[in-house]
Amino acid sequence: MSKTRSAKTNSGRFFEDYAVGDVLRHAVPRTVSGGERALYHALYPARHALYSSDEFARRSGLPKSPLDDLAAFHIVFGKTVPDVSLNAVANLGYAEGRWLLPVYEGDTLRSESEVIGVKQNSNGKSGVVYVRTRGVNQREETVMEYVRWVMVRKKDLEAPAPETVIPALKKVIPVEDLVIPEGLDFSGYDFDQAGEPHHWGDYAVGETIDHVDGVTIEEAEHMIATRLWQNTAKVHFDATARPDGSRLIYGGHVISMARALSFNGLANAQMIVGLNGGAHANPCASGMTVRAWSEVLDKAETSAPGVGAIRLRLVAASGAEPFTLKGEDGKYLPGVLLDLDYWALMPV
Amino acid sequence: MSKTRSAKTNSGRFFEDYAVGDVLRHAVPRTVSGGERALYHALYPARHALYSSDEFARRSGLPKSPLDDLAAFHIVFGKTVPDVSLNAVANLGYAEGRWLLPVYEGDTLRSESEVIGVKQNSNGKSGVVYVRTRGVNQREETVMEYVRWVMVRKKDLEAPAPETVIPALKKVIPVEDLVIPEGLDFSGYDFDQAGEPHHWGDYAVGETIDHVDGVTIEEAEHMIATRLWQNTAKVHFDATARPDGSRLIYGGHVISMARALSFNGLANAQMIVGLNGGAHANPCASGMTVRAWSEVLDKAETSAPGVGAIRLRLVAASGAEPFTLKGEDGKYLPGVLLDLDYWALMPV
Amino acid sequence: MSKTRSAKTNSGRFFEDYAVGDVLRHAVPRTVSGGERALYHALYPARHALYSSDEFARRSGLPKSPLDDLAAFHIVFGKTVPDVSLNAVANLGYAEGRWLLPVYEGDTLRSESEVIGVKQNSNGKSGVVYVRTRGVNQREETVMEYVRWVMVRKKDLEAPAPETVIPALKKVIPVEDLVIPEGLDFSGYDFDQAGEPHHWGDYAVGETIDHVDGVTIEEAEHMIATRLWQNTAKVHFDATARPDGSRLIYGGHVISMARALSFNGLANAQMIVGLNGGAHANPCASGMTVRAWSEVLDKAETSAPGVGAIRLRLVAASGAEPFTLKGEDGKYLPGVLLDLDYWALMPV
Repeated sequence: MSKTRSAKTNSGRFFEDYAVGDVLRHAVPRTVSGGERALYHALYPARHALYSSDEFARRSGLPKSPLDDLAAFHIVFGKTVPDVSLNAVANLGYAEGRWLLPVYEGDTLRSESEVIGVKQNSNGKSGVVYVRTRGVNQREETVMEYVRWVMVRKKDLEAPAPETVIPALKKVIPVEDLVIPEGLDFSGYDFDQAGEPHHWGDYAVGETIDHVDGVTIEEAEHMIATRLWQNTAKVHFDATARPDGSRLIYGGHVISMARALSFNGLANAQMIVGLNGGAHANPCASGMTVRAWSEVLDKAETSAPGVGAIRLRLVAASGAEPFTLKGEDGKYLPGVLLDLDYWALMPV
Repeated sequence: MSKTRSAKTNSGRFFEDYAVGDVLRHAVPRTVSGGERALYHALYPARHALYSSDEFARRSGLPKSPLDDLAAFHIVFGKTVPDVSLNAVANLGYAEGRWLLPVYEGDTLRSESEVIGVKQNSNGKSGVVYVRTRGVNQREETVMEYVRWVMVRKKDLEAPAPETVIPALKKVIPVEDLVIPEGLDFSGYDFDQAGEPHHWGDYAVGETIDHVDGVTIEEAEHMIATRLWQNTAKVHFDATARPDGSRLIYGGHVISMARALSFNGLANAQMIVGLNGGAHANPCASGMTVRAWSEVLDKAETSAPGVGAIRLRLVAASGAEPFTLKGEDGKYLPGVLLDLDYWALMPV
Repeated sequence: MSKTRSAKTNSGRFFEDYAVGDVLRHAVPRTVSGGERALYHALYPARHALYSSDEFARRSGLPKSPLDDLAAFHIVFGKTVPDVSLNAVANLGYAEGRWLLPVYEGDTLRSESEVIGVKQNSNGKSGVVYVRTRGVNQREETVMEYVRWVMVRKKDLEAPAPETVIPALKKVIPVEDLVIPEGLDFSGYDFDQAGEPHHWGDYAVGETIDHVDGVTIEEAEHMIATRLWQNTAKVHFDATARPDGSRLIYGGHVISMARALSFNGLANAQMIVGLNGGAHANPCASGMTVRAWSEVLDKAETSAPGVGAIRLRLVAASGAEPFTLKGEDGKYLPGVLLDLDYWALMPV
């Protein structure tokens, strides 16, 4: 019985392993239950009523309360990590994210990604990979989709540079491309139960909102959250992976924290239906106190009864003043963690 | 597109904003699932069998295992925070708390509070507000109620003092006012499965019980717990809110911790049905090791088969010796965190 | 009303309290829900598809996704602590562990243990107790069983030594004694969705696998996990119980962490069906970064369609190099935390 070292461990894909048109079927489908919802509310100060109460959801025309839209995003995203970002140097951006169907308890999600662009960097050591990822339920329906691009290292520096393909991506999803859940109806919306009296009509383009509250980040919490989405990238968990002994926090943790904090001032921005773009401006680490502010970027009517669309910038910061974003050099200020651009649905 | 600062953030109510007779419908209803139960057991060393096992609950005459009575309390309480205690200087007391109906998976809870008393302090800068809060389920049934009074700051120091109204509150809920869940029957109680052999008849008024075990408090745990109840008061989460960088722990976290620790010696004090009073004697902070002791204050028979009522003092402490409570000056000792007075149901 | 000190607190059993043939019915039955599954995935980087997806489980011939086999073990184990190991000096070993029936949401588990061996130590101050523990569901079916032996202190040093009984225990469970869940069928196994392409046939006896990833241990996480299994032994929770202020981490936390890490290289070792033995080689403490490696010890065919059995050594380490285990003195290296020997089921 001789001992042999196995080569079965996944070492991830490198830049030269991606070709435009490849479809990656990501592993480990996930059935969701009330447990995911309870944990989401335990990890983030999430209080949007549609995701908290079956009764509120039914009054809004849905069969019951769906899984938080960002929880659905995290589940779909988490599955892509072993195939897309294990050897990523940086998560560069998001675009064309759309939520197409609510996710309910008992649904099983899987993910798949199509490589839609590649561009080798001029240094020859890495390149940018663009993927369009879809989350698919047990009925083979797409529940959400988004484009993400990452910088990935090459393993074989001699591998030839692929033909550059940069996908044409919309800077902003046109409102007519947003998908409103079937049956959604805010005409009988209960503002008292939702927590704030502000209608869609009360928000003005250009208006900025300081969400006031702050949450100090703990190692145990971001790790519990990140694992819940089965995102097991070692940088988030292994304190020995970085020279200073800190763990790099999953960017999605900051997205969910900021969105939850935005309840205070945007309690009626109930459903996220579009992700126009987003930048993880600076890394987040344990001990930081995260705050958030928003800016109304646009507004649009929809065909659903009582439902308006609002386009919001959501900024998470630790140390940067509210309503500050970039320095004179055009770069994000050191205290800015997240700059997200999304569409939400509100009662008119 | 000019930028405007929003005034939509909730800054909470101040003393002058409360008038006797006001009814506050608190926001964000909540549907509970198995997730809340699992988290409650993960956050506290809770082992009372009725809240752990559907089989044990059925043998006790209930349709299935209800949500822990304190978890129901926390959910109801959490909703009141934005309307009652956002600007509170201190949580002064509880009275007349009664659990009226068990809460089961799938139930949706909301809360409402009636202002039943106001009294401006002599300094003119703050006042005491008394509210009677009710937790209501999706069938508009009241599942629990309690009175709570808090000291709240005035914003407008010029606002006239309201007429003082101090509600007449019972020091102890009479046993005939306690509501025993329909069908509850301990005549076939399984003491082995419950964990201890001690009957209601084995406890004597005046008996004191040291619950022995201790739990050291972690920041991540109290924040997860507090958020689970959608209590998002910033003092619990924001390490920059206090000069020493510590977070003030939600008093309910200490209540649940002490109650769970009391299993060791009071495993058969299954259901909490009455809250006579309670004081958060000193603040709790991360790093403290919480212990608990109890004293039997009273006993009473009930009309339900095999069910006795027991009135207990539950004390949580960190540093104070068991069975010590107040100093010669009549003030709580520095190591005492909680002094709670409640009614529970036990097998006779 | 005179105050009396109660003697109702459980002080646990001492060595002289165990006699061969005793059957201990452990307290606090537990109904499991989706909450336990979600928490298990939040606490460990668990990604085996059978325990994550109802769809994957159905394709494998099961009615739905069962509770993770180790979660079932922890629930069964946790109940034994107050009766078996409250006064234990050391957890010495496991043997003859078998999973007999999957556990599903809604099942209620209880545990019972039979004392099958006792041996007083030569120092007269302690002894070894062997118990065979069974986890039983609400239909009185045994869902799992295992033998465990612990060293327990004597309280009464004058108590006579019992007749020594050392049970004959199998070093390895013969493959024909393993119980394969009814209906399990891996003939249509989806390797893409499971996460790795490696078949049972691809593993060779003697092969070693470095699972690469590491997870740094947090106090909040191991306490949440341990409480979830209602294992409330104070050493895991009370920082004042040990001179250095650290908490002793429940050995099962390390088992689950290592098993979850082993996904990377053993994603298709889906179900654990046998526990041949295990040693908690060194204690684990907060701040350690746990890594894992495996060695293929044996392989065997089974009668179920497409299902092979694989016997694995699973080693968890913090600081010890992969594939190192014991020093020249035959003792475990200081950085080795766990040495586990188990049978799992894989697609052939």
